Amino acid sequence: MTLAKRPSPTISPGETGRSARKRRAILDAATEVFLRSGYLGTNMDEIAALSAVSKQTVYKQFGSKEALFIEIVSSMTNEAGDLVHNDMPESGDGEDLAAYLREYGYRQLRVVLTPRIMQLRRLVIGEVSRFPELARVLYEHGPMRAVTELAALFEGLVGRGLLTIDEPMVAASHFNWLVMSAPLNQAMLLGDDAIPGEAELRRHAEEGVRVFLAAYGKQ
Amino acid sequence: MTLAKRPSPTISPGETGRSARKRRAILDAATEVFLRSGYLGTNMDEIAALSAVSKQTVYKQFGSKEALFIEIVSSMTNEAGDLVHNDMPESGDGEDLAAYLREYGYRQLRVVLTPRIMQLRRLVIGEVSRFPELARVLYEHGPMRAVTELAALFEGLVGRGLLTIDEPMVAASHFNWLVMSAPLNQAMLLGDDAIPGEAELRRHAEEGVRVFLAAYGKQ
Repeated sequence: MTLAKRPSPTISPGETGRSARKRRAILDAATEVFLRSGYLGTNMDEIAALSAVSKQTVYKQFGSKEALFIEIVSSMTNEAGDLVHNDMPESGDGEDLAAYLREYGYRQLRVVLTPRIMQLRRLVIGEVSRFPELARVLYEHGPMRAVTELAALFEGLVGRGLLTIDEPMVAASHFNWLVMSAPLNQAMLLGDDAIPGEAELRRHAEEGVRVFLAAYGKQ
Repeated sequence: MTLAKRPSPTISPGETGRSARKRRAILDAATEVFLRSGYLGTNMDEIAALSAVSKQTVYKQFGSKEALFIEIVSSMTNEAGDLVHNDMPESGDGEDLAAYLREYGYRQLRVVLTPRIMQLRRLVIGEVSRFPELARVLYEHGPMRAVTELAALFEGLVGRGLLTIDEPMVAASHFNWLVMSAPLNQAMLLGDDAIPGEAELRRHAEEGVRVFLAAYGKQ
């Protein structure tokens, strides 16, 4: 599995002023309509009306309904990924490592387990057979990116003698799913009301990290 | 979280002959139509035609489209659960434990990661907001049952001094997701062609069990 390189979905620096504002308005309106009406149930007229631009402008900016939805999937999952990975401080040594990993896991949970991301994930999964490209984008920008970033983090920690890992991608996948799976699966199937609160998310992170360190901690 | 008690979806012993055959024919036809057309896209006329009974008979047997679909979710997930849990031999002692758990994990993967169950799971997740009851049934008969059965197994192994576990449900959830999550998530998002083959599934089971035993093995 490789992480496909895709153009960044954020607005480019040169793209400012009126055009950028329109683009942002279309993305916001489209997100709202897609999450409410599903992929098939969404039409471009509604998005144009809600963002107060012409349908021509929507097509000029995004090309097609599929391209617009892919842009939304990319930008929502990228924003979530950035929230987890950016501004995360360097890990401390020794005893601090467990606390650092718990905080990392908790950030992952808090950022991903939101009603909007759960709704997007359900919508995309429901369309896998008709529109496989949508889910592929979510897979690459979501779990695949999370595991790749974790693997890089762990390689650094192995280099500093803080973890013992032969295959960083396997260890990263274990960390990711030990922390995320139970609450994610619960929220996906039982609905947004089943998204756990802070204390329960912290408990999932704590228990996942304990198991992870038993297998991959300094020997 | 409790495992709700539901009537068994299997055909009762007294229900034999023509009526049972009709019921089976309706269930088979309905499974095919639901998986092909989605929940909203399915109508009872099509199911009646495909199973060669009248629409009245379909309603008499199952009451409503929702009840019929819930019956299908129950019976598919129950059958999968039975395949994992029934006929599983008692575990051996000591060194055999890891091999036993690897086999258990591999059975879970092989039984759950089929195109039909992946299609059902995607369909149900796509309908969570409109029909939350469908996903609740899948949750209870699927992962919730798996974790509950694993917890009971682990309690027995703790009693025999083979595992060290404080909270069997937490340990069971860790086992379940260490083994299942990466390939399940891959198959759910990347489609049926991304269901891993036997060698890869065995590797997932092996790696998951290694991490599990590092945390919960005999101290």
